[in-house]
Amino acid sequence: MSSISLDQFQLVYNAFSFTIAAMGAATLFFWLGRSQVSDYYKTALTITGLVTAIALYHYIRIFDSWSAAYTITGLKIEPSGIAFNDAYRYVDWILTVPLLLVELILVMRLSRAETWSKSTRLGLLAVAMIVLGYPGEISAVPSTKWLWWGLAMLPFIWIVYELFVGLGKSIASQPTEVRGLINAARWLTVISWSFYPVVFVFPMLGFSGGAAATAVQVGYTVADVVAKVVFGFVIYLIAVRRSALEEAASPDKTGRMAPA
Amino acid sequence: MSSISLDQFQLVYNAFSFTIAAMGAATLFFWLGRSQVSDYYKTALTITGLVTAIALYHYIRIFDSWSAAYTITGLKIEPSGIAFNDAYRYVDWILTVPLLLVELILVMRLSRAETWSKSTRLGLLAVAMIVLGYPGEISAVPSTKWLWWGLAMLPFIWIVYELFVGLGKSIASQPTEVRGLINAARWLTVISWSFYPVVFVFPMLGFSGGAAATAVQVGYTVADVVAKVVFGFVIYLIAVRRSALEEAASPDKTGRMAPA
Repeated sequence: MSSISLDQFQLVYNAFSFTIAAMGAATLFFWLGRSQVSDYYKTALTITGLVTAIALYHYIRIFDSWSAAYTITGLKIEPSGIAFNDAYRYVDWILTVPLLLVELILVMRLSRAETWSKSTRLGLLAVAMIVLGYPGEISAVPSTKWLWWGLAMLPFIWIVYELFVGLGKSIASQPTEVRGLINAARWLTVISWSFYPVVFVFPMLGFSGGAAATAVQVGYTVADVVAKVVFGFVIYLIAVRRSALEEAASPDKTGRMAPA
Repeated sequence: MSSISLDQFQLVYNAFSFTIAAMGAATLFFWLGRSQVSDYYKTALTITGLVTAIALYHYIRIFDSWSAAYTITGLKIEPSGIAFNDAYRYVDWILTVPLLLVELILVMRLSRAETWSKSTRLGLLAVAMIVLGYPGEISAVPSTKWLWWGLAMLPFIWIVYELFVGLGKSIASQPTEVRGLINAARWLTVISWSFYPVVFVFPMLGFSGGAAATAVQVGYTVADVVAKVVFGFVIYLIAVRRSALEEAASPDKTGRMAPA
């Protein structure tokens, strides 16, 4: 482990603890909200809460791994010899990033065939993006880091293309009342996901030692909160608004507010 | 314990942590999905979630046992002297493998008598398969390993026969809309279950030391995720689709979207 100052250690430590609280609270909010949307949108809220629940699990592991990686005696801090396990983040992303895209597709209420094909394509691109990033993350060689960073950017750009061009027609057919929110969810995805490749290059841009380690951990943590909790809240708003619209249009059928 | 490299240790460690997250997420997904299917199919989703919940428990134990089996000092890794407990897997399978077959039977909605007789027969065959495999798993003598492997293959082949011949007539009478999914579930069972006898023979095929230990652990883990999470998701899709079909056919009876 790179040597960091006690202040840096504590900033990261508190950021991790903040995220445990935020992910846990978000999970409960999304799942409790299931009873307030119509049947069709329950699955979207189930998955929105699964994403934050999976992140909750990983942030507990990350917090414990961070705590174990340093020994603090009074005001003195030194690496304990136990390596901080950065792989938890990648394991988390492999599970959660495809699910984040599925949330967005589900809340658009496309046909079954479209839902299936778009979820599969976006999900596989997301997995490819994460898998290609990992060899760069664990390498210490700048050229290797840049190579895998560049390779992971290809599926990322493809995902952005799918969100803005591939989904364009489907978005034009959404009810006007939620089009703005769906657009916001799309932009939030692109902006929050852009944090990751930027944070990834911190160590390659001359940041080094404790400052770089701190910037990477805090940077990924902020990105995770925006991409999962804030994004999930927009998905929740779309689900609630569409349920109300559909109930008003046809109280006995699609939009019935199902009990519990 | 065979000596393994730090990279091998960490690959297995992260695979176990991934599986804890996947099993936990799958359990919640299946149980939250109970409110979206008609009464008849709730039991199938309850059991689907039980399978992943039991696996969640065992993977937490397996993860802890794996962590305790090695001592890591900096970049050096050595066996701690505490044996890794492989029996957790067999305990898990004795509980979960019969339940996996029951899930499939339940979602086919056969008569009560058929549901009972097929569940009992397949469940007992599954228990026989696991019990016969265990003496081979713990033996270090190749001829003993092959003997029990061969004996465990007999109920396995019988199960495959039951799935493809015994259930043939029942599958022909399923609604066309779900026949493809039921067929997929059957094939997924056979293919994912075939991983186990293959992984079992890794050490008998000349794989040895750290590579064999790593291949066995990662192999079983991948097989468990496919056989429990991916298979469970197919069961979930069948339950949701059949509920919708039955609700459309008879809105006041079988298919009523029951609360919670």
